[in-house]
Amino acid sequence: MSEVTRIMGIDPGLRRCGWGIIESSGNRLGFVACGTLTPDVAQTLAQRLADLHAGLSAVIGEYRPEEAAVEETFVNQGARSALQLGQARGVALMTPAALGLPVGEYAANLVKKSVVGTGHADKEQVQLMVRTLLPGASFKGADAADALAIAICHAHHRAHRRLVVGA
Amino acid sequence: MSEVTRIMGIDPGLRRCGWGIIESSGNRLGFVACGTLTPDVAQTLAQRLADLHAGLSAVIGEYRPEEAAVEETFVNQGARSALQLGQARGVALMTPAALGLPVGEYAANLVKKSVVGTGHADKEQVQLMVRTLLPGASFKGADAADALAIAICHAHHRAHRRLVVGA
Repeated sequence: MSEVTRIMGIDPGLRRCGWGIIESSGNRLGFVACGTLTPDVAQTLAQRLADLHAGLSAVIGEYRPEEAAVEETFVNQGARSALQLGQARGVALMTPAALGLPVGEYAANLVKKSVVGTGHADKEQVQLMVRTLLPGASFKGADAADALAIAICHAHHRAHRRLVVGA
Repeated sequence: MSEVTRIMGIDPGLRRCGWGIIESSGNRLGFVACGTLTPDVAQTLAQRLADLHAGLSAVIGEYRPEEAAVEETFVNQGARSALQLGQARGVALMTPAALGLPVGEYAANLVKKSVVGTGHADKEQVQLMVRTLLPGASFKGADAADALAIAICHAHHRAHRRLVVGA
């Protein structure tokens, strides 16, 4: 019997941050939970980032994942958008590491390839394959599905992973 | 007698993050402490951001500032640099807010104008004026001086500040 590892995937974003928890045991995957954090846009930036940190910390506290994975951001927009996304991504990377979880990073096309079989899948294909790979997975919208896809990618690549061993 | 407010300025960066603590009482300013955090570049990104968070949290725990201020980043580089800087900046904004401090943001030229009198001062002018405005201030290099300048700017603009009231 293989050991069960609980993995958290995070799709970072300031307006919508998806998260998903799966269990991986050998070649078997299981759905645990997923959701989307939506910090109040009426708050200022620092407070929205603090809310994101608190939300991710609460998910980790509730579901106790042992490892985390965050998508490597592909920067194809302007510097201003990249700065904004970077701020949310910094909190998404830091929060599990600060709680002692190893954090893997995976390029977006590797995440898609792991789940759909090609690096150029669209959102609907990713959602369809996430539902197929994780029977019982229930989510609305792309953010939580993307987070689950990142967790699946991590489960597939753990042997060759780049991990941050948390303090 | 005016009330004394302790203010923390942060100059965010992943390689070098400056911090400075001052006290403001009416028109009077006083130096408390400053320094530079340098997360180990041999660590992975998530761990470096976690170290930055831990370092800033430790400074807040030791010196108990009541308000914080972070420079608004002027994005004049490529998207890749902006993403990197954004990740450190996200942690720098989030950490004081998560600990309940109001966080002000100030444009770089406003910080320079507050300290030197013009928005186009160079690093040496900023350091000279920080030493003049904060007798006894001791720092090496630009990062801690910039952080003290941000704290001074916040002290000057508190009446018209944009603040995030922490949760």
